[in-house]
Amino acid sequence: MASLGDIGVSALINIITAFAFLIAFALLRIQPINDRVYFSKWYISGARTSPRHDNIVSRFVNLDCKTYLSFLNWMPQALRMKEPEIIQHAGLDSAAFLRIYLLGLKIFGPAAIVAFLVLIPVNVSGGMLFFFSRELVTRDIDKLSISNVREKSPKLFAHISVMYLFTFWSCYMLYKEYDVVASMRLNFLASKSRRVEQFTVLVKNVPRIPGRSVSNTVDCFFKKNHSTHYLCHQVVYNANKYARVVRKRQKLQNRLDYNRLKFERHPEKPPTRKTGFLGLWGEKVGSIEYYQKKIKELDEKLTTEHHKILNDPKRIMPAAFVSFNSRWGAAVCAQTQQSKNPILWLTDWAPEPRDIYWKNLAIPFVSLSIRKLVISLAVFTLVFFYIIPIAFVQSLANLEGLEKVVPFLRPVIELNFIKSFLQGFLPGLALKIFLWLLPGILMTMSKIEGHVAFSVLETSTASKYYFFMLVNVFLGSIATGTAIEQLQSFLHESPTQIPRTIGVAIPMKATFFITYIMVDGWAGMAGEILRLKPLIMFHLKSMLLVKTDRDKTKAMNPKSIDFPEAIPSLQLYFLMGAVYAVVTPVLLPFILIFFAFAFFVYRHQVINVYNQRYESAAAFWPHVHTRIVASLMISQLLLMGLLSTKKAVNSTPLLIVLPVLTLTFHKYCKSRFEPAFRKYPLEEAVEKDAQDEGSEPTVDIIPYMCEAYLHPVLRSIEEFELFELGIDNNQSHIPNQQLPTKPVSGSHSPISEQENKGSPKMQQHVEVAVEQHQTAHTCHHKKSTLNMDVTHY
Amino acid sequence: MASLGDIGVSALINIITAFAFLIAFALLRIQPINDRVYFSKWYISGARTSPRHDNIVSRFVNLDCKTYLSFLNWMPQALRMKEPEIIQHAGLDSAAFLRIYLLGLKIFGPAAIVAFLVLIPVNVSGGMLFFFSRELVTRDIDKLSISNVREKSPKLFAHISVMYLFTFWSCYMLYKEYDVVASMRLNFLASKSRRVEQFTVLVKNVPRIPGRSVSNTVDCFFKKNHSTHYLCHQVVYNANKYARVVRKRQKLQNRLDYNRLKFERHPEKPPTRKTGFLGLWGEKVGSIEYYQKKIKELDEKLTTEHHKILNDPKRIMPAAFVSFNSRWGAAVCAQTQQSKNPILWLTDWAPEPRDIYWKNLAIPFVSLSIRKLVISLAVFTLVFFYIIPIAFVQSLANLEGLEKVVPFLRPVIELNFIKSFLQGFLPGLALKIFLWLLPGILMTMSKIEGHVAFSVLETSTASKYYFFMLVNVFLGSIATGTAIEQLQSFLHESPTQIPRTIGVAIPMKATFFITYIMVDGWAGMAGEILRLKPLIMFHLKSMLLVKTDRDKTKAMNPKSIDFPEAIPSLQLYFLMGAVYAVVTPVLLPFILIFFAFAFFVYRHQVINVYNQRYESAAAFWPHVHTRIVASLMISQLLLMGLLSTKKAVNSTPLLIVLPVLTLTFHKYCKSRFEPAFRKYPLEEAVEKDAQDEGSEPTVDIIPYMCEAYLHPVLRSIEEFELFELGIDNNQSHIPNQQLPTKPVSGSHSPISEQENKGSPKMQQHVEVAVEQHQTAHTCHHKKSTLNMDVTHY
Repeated sequence: MASLGDIGVSALINIITAFAFLIAFALLRIQPINDRVYFSKWYISGARTSPRHDNIVSRFVNLDCKTYLSFLNWMPQALRMKEPEIIQHAGLDSAAFLRIYLLGLKIFGPAAIVAFLVLIPVNVSGGMLFFFSRELVTRDIDKLSISNVREKSPKLFAHISVMYLFTFWSCYMLYKEYDVVASMRLNFLASKSRRVEQFTVLVKNVPRIPGRSVSNTVDCFFKKNHSTHYLCHQVVYNANKYARVVRKRQKLQNRLDYNRLKFERHPEKPPTRKTGFLGLWGEKVGSIEYYQKKIKELDEKLTTEHHKILNDPKRIMPAAFVSFNSRWGAAVCAQTQQSKNPILWLTDWAPEPRDIYWKNLAIPFVSLSIRKLVISLAVFTLVFFYIIPIAFVQSLANLEGLEKVVPFLRPVIELNFIKSFLQGFLPGLALKIFLWLLPGILMTMSKIEGHVAFSVLETSTASKYYFFMLVNVFLGSIATGTAIEQLQSFLHESPTQIPRTIGVAIPMKATFFITYIMVDGWAGMAGEILRLKPLIMFHLKSMLLVKTDRDKTKAMNPKSIDFPEAIPSLQLYFLMGAVYAVVTPVLLPFILIFFAFAFFVYRHQVINVYNQRYESAAAFWPHVHTRIVASLMISQLLLMGLLSTKKAVNSTPLLIVLPVLTLTFHKYCKSRFEPAFRKYPLEEAVEKDAQDEGSEPTVDIIPYMCEAYLHPVLRSIEEFELFELGIDNNQSHIPNQQLPTKPVSGSHSPISEQENKGSPKMQQHVEVAVEQHQTAHTCHHKKSTLNMDVTHY
Repeated sequence: MASLGDIGVSALINIITAFAFLIAFALLRIQPINDRVYFSKWYISGARTSPRHDNIVSRFVNLDCKTYLSFLNWMPQALRMKEPEIIQHAGLDSAAFLRIYLLGLKIFGPAAIVAFLVLIPVNVSGGMLFFFSRELVTRDIDKLSISNVREKSPKLFAHISVMYLFTFWSCYMLYKEYDVVASMRLNFLASKSRRVEQFTVLVKNVPRIPGRSVSNTVDCFFKKNHSTHYLCHQVVYNANKYARVVRKRQKLQNRLDYNRLKFERHPEKPPTRKTGFLGLWGEKVGSIEYYQKKIKELDEKLTTEHHKILNDPKRIMPAAFVSFNSRWGAAVCAQTQQSKNPILWLTDWAPEPRDIYWKNLAIPFVSLSIRKLVISLAVFTLVFFYIIPIAFVQSLANLEGLEKVVPFLRPVIELNFIKSFLQGFLPGLALKIFLWLLPGILMTMSKIEGHVAFSVLETSTASKYYFFMLVNVFLGSIATGTAIEQLQSFLHESPTQIPRTIGVAIPMKATFFITYIMVDGWAGMAGEILRLKPLIMFHLKSMLLVKTDRDKTKAMNPKSIDFPEAIPSLQLYFLMGAVYAVVTPVLLPFILIFFAFAFFVYRHQVINVYNQRYESAAAFWPHVHTRIVASLMISQLLLMGLLSTKKAVNSTPLLIVLPVLTLTFHKYCKSRFEPAFRKYPLEEAVEKDAQDEGSEPTVDIIPYMCEAYLHPVLRSIEEFELFELGIDNNQSHIPNQQLPTKPVSGSHSPISEQENKGSPKMQQHVEVAVEQHQTAHTCHHKKSTLNMDVTHY
């Protein structure tokens, strides 16, 4: 058991680290040369451009001394922007993400006050207030926790009461928060201007009818079953191979540009390379000619491939994006069952075009079930047995193994100092690498599962990551032994024994978790704001690759908030808080500081740095809510186990009520709020439709519909680049006024113009477009008669 | 352990009992006097009327000797009707119910063959076939079961293989059956002529808007959000109190009739009664005048109450039946979310009018959640702790208690013979009464839960009953001690220990279950076909009450199939079969005989006796499927436990695969077939709508819509009587041709005519009807323009 003094030392070290990071950040961010790293969001939104200075030095270094004095002013700045502005500026996902931290403060703030006023005095003594006495500070931290209370003591009822209070307070805050976020979501969706995804439904598992194309099948089906609302559709092309070739071409183009630049600088020495593997051997040729030839070859390949995509019926996936002439029609189609066979014609809302994970659009229904099974088994195995391969690698990666691989380093390795360092370092290395790779592995698993949108992929990854953290970080730290050993012992213990085993260990691990909070939370957040890795990458890229403004944008690569990692880590703090609120309340202030600090940091980052790849309108909130409720229930069960070891058996009925109530609360919230996140109410759809009719009745939305859901690589290579970077090109927004430059009908769709700008010429699938426009116009005509009908009614 | 001989004796006794019942049935059913008991379905469908005989004796007794010779010919008769005819005759619910027994035969028939060919030889010896030797028959039954196999024997892999085979075979049959039933359901729904429930949606939780009536709110909402499809609506009146008064009046009327009859027979002695409590004391008055006065009072009360219902806004519940002009419109409304607030405007398909449980239509959303919680806790308590109050009652109802209550019987009770009889009888009495009351208790619980249709109530009761049987009959028979003790020990045992504890006991309990199958299954089924209780009740009623043909129909009271009891009991046999298929295969023939015999019996009853109260189109099938799959998984876990005691530890990985696969199969089936039972595909709706348009485009469906969902008591007392008896009056069927006798618009709706027939005059809620017809006609006009639009398209 660590004393309070030990924790003080640890806190000091971490606070110093955090401050060092903060000062570094404060100094670096005011240097103009780092501007694009720390304010990338503003560059992307176009509010900031490269600063122009006369002085060459002032382009790189900030020479204005005054700004150095106010180096901590980012904190008030981060608070200045109001929530509605943040939603406007960065989207609802970011705003809702920030609210999780606020929720933490709201739940644990009052909890900390009550716990400090009631529980710590009770724990320390017979409830008398010699709480502020000098002795206390140097005492064991356990004196402040429930461990200090004697067995069968009636004082334990104070803990039970506080648990009740805490549960009710948490549920109240969770309910309020869910309510607020749900209405924020509805308002956000309502305030959005017309966007294609509001009118579009993704249809999967279109049946293959022999002798008819997918496009034709879809058209017939929806003309028949949604006759008055169906507008047009876009079939999904399997362009994965094409996209791979395009990516390859981009790489070659990049090398070509680099070589040309080199040649411009040194015209006397034309760059050469060898034709063999990786340019290591083979005939020596001029680089520029070599790459030009390669690119030409690829271009030919691209043309045939493009032709194939448009003409080979096998390249058309049994899925389609079906657009409707009103939100009502789309809402109806997304929520109803279409076909007599429930696994055909599956409809769901189409994700935003930039949110789509194109590769997964063609997975058949049976395969999806199998994939889900396989992946859930794989996740289970990963969580409980990941230690086996790592232990195996560790056994290989020891000093002897190293000496065999690099025998010439033997004298160095044999040095005592280095040897002990390596012995301490090597075994951990495999684990570190694994943990670093973990989010990627989990994301791959989610991709195999077959979700079709990045937002869903990230939510699914977050769930898996949380499960891993819960078992291996939280329970793993409390119980002894590895996860497999725990699993083994849990299988052979009685169900009532499990919470008891863990419950007993909980108060003893408080210091560990306090340290964890300081290292992972405090210092980690300070590291987050410093953005060391992106900073270095940006400067490296700037030096080596950047030639145009466009390249600079690419080099910034601001990324989105890392939801799959950030949300589960954050929820681990909720779990710790809930578990220790009653057991060892001294942990709460550390968590509160984390929540407050992280809130500042992320608010700053959301405003200045991150650029969200997609906007799901806080679709992750139900998961957040569910997992916080689960944390509450875990804490209740563990407290029950802990109290049963205190022989307060008569308290069990009192405590058993809590999980039941919490579960009921969860179920109620689920039916009360979740539909707002899964479905789109018809009332809302009708209102928005009516608004549109009133304000801009003449806009022809068809051209936007038909193109928005084309695979970006089939539009133009530039668009594809932007798509891969996750930058919104506003393609999915339907303007209020028709832009005069964009013709609205026939085969001259806007995309053909964009193509002419500079990227390689690609064939346009004219046939489809023409057919779609014809269909669409018929529908549109019908729509206006329908609308008149409604108005006259 | 019973020997095979013991079981032979038991089988003989039960077979004799069953045969006695069967012969009694065969003799009784051909007596004309019992005709209405054994062929009630035909009387209700109108295919059979009271037989007319010249001879007074032949009206009561069958004198044709020939018919006595062929007294077992009901069996082939029961098979003669083909399945489509049964569906036509008795509905899909009955046909699907019969298929469960066939499914049992299909699953366990081949399983029995394989088990007998493979497992019994393996169990008996080293796999050698001295299986048919004479010795065997007299041996212990355990010699035939897995108990006979030595520990760690490799023969256990034969059992594992058979378990695999059995699981795959069962899943294959289940899948095929689900497929068949799902398509039967779709065909059935498609073949149905127009019925009101196809066009109607039940809307619950209509918000109360101050200053506006519910009717007005509903009208505005649907006119706005389903403008082109909304037709009319029927608000729900709280007529529960009114119905109570009507029931009271019916009782009085009955007594009045009885007294009048008495007076007619004995005009010299007018019947009298006392005015006090139960007619036991007070002033003596003439019975006829007394009842006439009482009825007059009630009639006045009814008039005011009826007036109140129609005029008091508080009597209008926040729910409504909303009708649409097409199945498409109704399907859309039933499947989508209407309001921004997910707990308002909840829509779902309206049940058939005769299926509605009117009392539960007004429960608000929050109350529903609480009710669900309370009832699930209550069911848990009931299942695990029901023994406590019963033990308490038992402790009271002993001989001493009896002697205190009836001291004058003391000498009789003290007789040794009677004493020992009572001692054996009394303690069991409380339990017997409880078990007899149980289905009623569970049904009441389901009603409190707040389901709005009888079909759902019965499914929900069936689930509860199955849970009770699983814990108290199946597990209770295997494990020792009461359910509470088991719960206690399970909580303190490790999760792997539980299947082991039960698994070990399983082979030992085989003889018990064989006896159970013979008593509950064989003899029970024979009792079912005899219908002793309805037979006695019918003759009692015929003697005492019956005056008109209508009364005779009432006295028949054929009832429906008792789904809440029949389905769970039946599924218990699936569970036993699955568990013992591998462990003690000799049990299988007994189950097969049960399934075959029960199939005959129920087929006969379905054709000749039962009159289903409602038609849910096999809506219970997903539950049946789920519980059979659950039985499979239970059997797999128990086999795993059993094998682990055989120290065949290396078989665990092999067996752990099975539950996982079974669960996946279940999930797949759920998503593959369940939507067919919960939703109504738009494709189907459009097809049916188009058919209607083609065949009978001129029918005005509005009058039927508006009345079908009026509380039956508000229509006329006669209808209410029929409703309470569960007899379909075909009110919900929309005829193809308009009947010339029924005026279709204005306030002269068909119901007002029926009212004049003889039941007390009731006020008609003319205002509402008029308003509805006006609304409806507007809509209808719009509908035809819409249809033209579609046809022209």
